Amino acid sequence: MKIRIGILGYGNLGRGIECAVKQNDDMELAAVFTRRDPSTVKILTEGVPVYPVSEAPAMKDKIDVMILCGGSATDLPEQTPEYVKYFNVIDSFDTHARIPEHFENVDAAAKSSGKTAIISVGWDPGMFSLNRLYANAILADGKDYTFWGKGVSQGHSDAIRRVNGVKDAKQYTVPVESALEAVRSGKNPELTTREKHTRECFVVAEEGADKAAIENEIKTMPNYFSDYDTTVNFISEEELKEKHSGIPHGGFVIRSGRTGWNGENKHVIEYSLKLDSNPEFTSSVLVAYARAAYRMNAEGQSGCKTVFDVAPAMLCRESGEELRKHLL
Amino acid sequence: MKIRIGILGYGNLGRGIECAVKQNDDMELAAVFTRRDPSTVKILTEGVPVYPVSEAPAMKDKIDVMILCGGSATDLPEQTPEYVKYFNVIDSFDTHARIPEHFENVDAAAKSSGKTAIISVGWDPGMFSLNRLYANAILADGKDYTFWGKGVSQGHSDAIRRVNGVKDAKQYTVPVESALEAVRSGKNPELTTREKHTRECFVVAEEGADKAAIENEIKTMPNYFSDYDTTVNFISEEELKEKHSGIPHGGFVIRSGRTGWNGENKHVIEYSLKLDSNPEFTSSVLVAYARAAYRMNAEGQSGCKTVFDVAPAMLCRESGEELRKHLL
Repeated sequence: MKIRIGILGYGNLGRGIECAVKQNDDMELAAVFTRRDPSTVKILTEGVPVYPVSEAPAMKDKIDVMILCGGSATDLPEQTPEYVKYFNVIDSFDTHARIPEHFENVDAAAKSSGKTAIISVGWDPGMFSLNRLYANAILADGKDYTFWGKGVSQGHSDAIRRVNGVKDAKQYTVPVESALEAVRSGKNPELTTREKHTRECFVVAEEGADKAAIENEIKTMPNYFSDYDTTVNFISEEELKEKHSGIPHGGFVIRSGRTGWNGENKHVIEYSLKLDSNPEFTSSVLVAYARAAYRMNAEGQSGCKTVFDVAPAMLCRESGEELRKHLL
Repeated sequence: MKIRIGILGYGNLGRGIECAVKQNDDMELAAVFTRRDPSTVKILTEGVPVYPVSEAPAMKDKIDVMILCGGSATDLPEQTPEYVKYFNVIDSFDTHARIPEHFENVDAAAKSSGKTAIISVGWDPGMFSLNRLYANAILADGKDYTFWGKGVSQGHSDAIRRVNGVKDAKQYTVPVESALEAVRSGKNPELTTREKHTRECFVVAEEGADKAAIENEIKTMPNYFSDYDTTVNFISEEELKEKHSGIPHGGFVIRSGRTGWNGENKHVIEYSLKLDSNPEFTSSVLVAYARAAYRMNAEGQSGCKTVFDVAPAMLCRESGEELRKHLL
């Protein structure tokens, strides 16, 4: 029997889940739930129903794992503790500072329903976190570095769009190559925010707008841009559409450290991602952890979990024997 | 109370374990066991006894985890099932083809003693295996590549030393940069053995030896060299000592794959290691898994495990709460 997946929220992430489920033949998409009018939501998979979210609880025996595709700011803090009453759930909650609080809320709800939740799944938090953990466990004496990009930051693009006179915009976060090289060399440099990343903006101005003023407002925007070397490029709407409509991302997690009786030997552990589509990759991670949630729940491991609590073999459909034979 | 570690076998790996234990203050070295005359074995840690291996079973209540530092060819297939009768054990068994058989033997012994064994720990098998598994779980439609080096291959160095007229030798396995680049580009190339790695040999010839004959014998040696582009450099004994006495290694695990309804988006996941000391890094991994074995056994998870079965949080001394706060 296949693992029956539900998708709650059908934006870029929801569509990514749908594509990822198609690639995993031990799973099937059971239903999509939306806060919009279901008749306006057209999904890719034939024969799968789209329901209003209000009908989700009634489907509790027809869905093994519900993947929650809402945003971290307001959706997930409410949705994850709510839906874990009925389903095993996965979310991609990514507000790092609020993870402890979210964990507690979800854990309490999951423990009373006997379901399994895995929160903060994706690549950061997610695969990057895992790589930080493994590298820290191995190299006790060392230093961690995380670089993001080159990739589109939705938050920064939105911030530019709110500037007066801006019609549309895309912002790329770019790691500084020389900083990456210094880290890889094992020198353990101290790097400022400005030394690690630059920000490249592609902006479509409204007709007649004051471009110098826009550029100045972007570059001096606190938190978002003022601590970075930022370049602003004005382009046409057509060019933005043609060259900047993708959602690529990626980054690097590096730990360098020392071993030996007197710390005489250096080691560098590096993990990197180069992604054409941030939401589709995130979705692929979510779907692998959906398999784990289903299996952990079947084994009686209920409550809230993170990627740190999931034994790697749980992510794969192959048996332990097959994994040892082919991947170890 | 600290986790009490025993080391069985005091060569490069055993010494690496000793250094790694020093870096982890939740652990202490309890004893070293050797097959040599203990009076001839000088260890680095003051006040720690060196015993003959025959005395190990008598220490079963004084050691929480025994780290087995023997070789995979003949030592570990006997030692791991034997010592798991008395201790939780870790080994670095690395004969990939014989892992299933070794697993079965160790599992049977561990289940009857109620101890926990984690086998095939290190970086390959070990961290590389884990990265192959995670990347496979995420990118269902993709292709795996593993490259080794630049680093010293002990087996190949030994093979050269057996050639007539060779006094000493070191062999480096070197990944081919253009092959790495082709893989990173997401092109999913088919690569032959020759296209992935080259072999660089540094050879000290006996006085009066026929160097051309030595070079020819190395380059045509089946399994070891004949399938590779091999370069042979004759150097003096002094130069070998001065420039080639380290044991560096490393390598790359890369998976590239596609997502999207029609596979329209490419992704590349890359994990790499650059190690000054192969045995010291391997030891650092073994020690982290020793902590996991101790904790898993305390939780009642006995039997034989591999890195695939160990939840990442088990490797760290920090609590789940601390890990979620600082590393997620």
